[in-house]
Amino acid sequence: MAITVVGSVAFDSIETPAGKRERCLGGAATYFSLAASYFTDVRVIAVVGEDFGRRQEAVFQAHNIDTLGIERAKGKSFFWEGSYLEDLNEAKTHITDLNVFAAFDPKIPDSYRDSEFLFLANIDPVLQRRVREQMPDVKLVAGDTMNYWIKDHREALLEVLKGLDILLINDTEARMLAGSNNLIQAAHSVLALGPEALVVKHGEYGATLFQGADSKVHGASCFRAPALPLEEVVDPTGAGDSFAGGFFGYLASQPEQTPAAFRRAMFYGGVMGSFACERFGTERLQKLTREEIDERFILFRELTHLD
Amino acid sequence: MAITVVGSVAFDSIETPAGKRERCLGGAATYFSLAASYFTDVRVIAVVGEDFGRRQEAVFQAHNIDTLGIERAKGKSFFWEGSYLEDLNEAKTHITDLNVFAAFDPKIPDSYRDSEFLFLANIDPVLQRRVREQMPDVKLVAGDTMNYWIKDHREALLEVLKGLDILLINDTEARMLAGSNNLIQAAHSVLALGPEALVVKHGEYGATLFQGADSKVHGASCFRAPALPLEEVVDPTGAGDSFAGGFFGYLASQPEQTPAAFRRAMFYGGVMGSFACERFGTERLQKLTREEIDERFILFRELTHLD
Repeated sequence: MAITVVGSVAFDSIETPAGKRERCLGGAATYFSLAASYFTDVRVIAVVGEDFGRRQEAVFQAHNIDTLGIERAKGKSFFWEGSYLEDLNEAKTHITDLNVFAAFDPKIPDSYRDSEFLFLANIDPVLQRRVREQMPDVKLVAGDTMNYWIKDHREALLEVLKGLDILLINDTEARMLAGSNNLIQAAHSVLALGPEALVVKHGEYGATLFQGADSKVHGASCFRAPALPLEEVVDPTGAGDSFAGGFFGYLASQPEQTPAAFRRAMFYGGVMGSFACERFGTERLQKLTREEIDERFILFRELTHLD
Repeated sequence: MAITVVGSVAFDSIETPAGKRERCLGGAATYFSLAASYFTDVRVIAVVGEDFGRRQEAVFQAHNIDTLGIERAKGKSFFWEGSYLEDLNEAKTHITDLNVFAAFDPKIPDSYRDSEFLFLANIDPVLQRRVREQMPDVKLVAGDTMNYWIKDHREALLEVLKGLDILLINDTEARMLAGSNNLIQAAHSVLALGPEALVVKHGEYGATLFQGADSKVHGASCFRAPALPLEEVVDPTGAGDSFAGGFFGYLASQPEQTPAAFRRAMFYGGVMGSFACERFGTERLQKLTREEIDERFILFRELTHLD
């Protein structure tokens, strides 16, 4: 079943201990779409500038990602420049140029309206809400956010959370959103804000799924998926969005979103996150096969299962 | 099969957000012994002062822990005072009084010499080596260390590592010992120093087992065990030593140390570490039943397994 995703499509200049890349194709919606495209149909809502050309368009087309909702505006695309020279776990931002993204007003093509799954990538919660309200009939809505919105746009974010089934954030964000350092207490608080499931991403330590007692998906209330220890993390940019793409893409590919499907989705999230880190930008995500993905899924199982 | 453990038996004064305790029974060998005692026979080598009385002795006796090797010296026992008020993951040390421990010269009772398993808890590597050399015929030797020995007593520690089968340390220690921030690269470097297996403890994120290619125990080279997310961490003191006790105690209880036994041992390590955090000092470890332990083992399985 198809996923509509709204978020950024951008250019990134990235420096890591492994090297440097100028103006790679990036943005949360790009990483998410590519990762999810191995599991299901994906439709993107975003805005790009005149620097987004055929080469970038071709990356989406090669994965059958619907780009009808990518609006072309006058000016330049969102641009981010950052480095991970001291700490691979945290980007140091040098430049953020919103460019055409500053005036982004998401428009949903009619052909997207039968999407049963909606992913609200990390953008202004006002825009997330606007998209959510235009797609009231979706089966499952997931979303991401970041410390900036949690800290300075809390009211708008709380409105978004009321309409979310699944929130995916990292440890720091979960603790900040809940105002609690204890992960379980933080999870309870976040689930009380609306989402029926919370995925907390722990970077190199994996991720934890928390599900509320009155969740649509009954069963285990807590599940831990590993991350794959990597010999070399070439570029962690987009790993979280790729996790979300693998997680939600797999869920959308399943006839029913059972507790078992949620567990496997957590593994597929970790799988796609690990691939994303192996090359710069979306390089690795562009050239995967479903066979490689399923091989790594088996590796994740071996990494965690007693027998 | 019996484990001999050498390490500290001490008194701890601890403050955490959950409260305060004065002079609880503590020390790495105490936590290790109690945790391991639920799986196998344990024999302790340590030194205590005149403040170690019948009440403390009774704690060991209640778990059939052999205290013949606990030497009584004139003076006071090792004393540590610390708090975890700002960060539950890292103790702030206020006082460390070595007392009788300053002149500790481990003596191994003859009745300990048929122990097939040896655990060298975190003490001066010179002492760890002395004990190791006096028990050349043990089947499996595991050990712990800490940043202080890694940084300032490296040569002595490297000698210990040559005689270890399994090293258990935390992330920071692994990275410091190897001089690498990447966990896999660090594991390779540490395994090249002698141990055939390395357990890296990640605190609330669990632990990873790395096994060298030429290990006695063939099979998977990497295994991740979770930690149990706890609603309240009352006191994290001794969690790592309790992990080691559960891990090594379980291994020692098995007829063969197969790859499957190592995996289950990682889970039992996590189980005992999680219990340790639920009450102050060794309170929780003193009053467990094997049934509670196995129930929690099942919980760890549910927390991580796809089906």
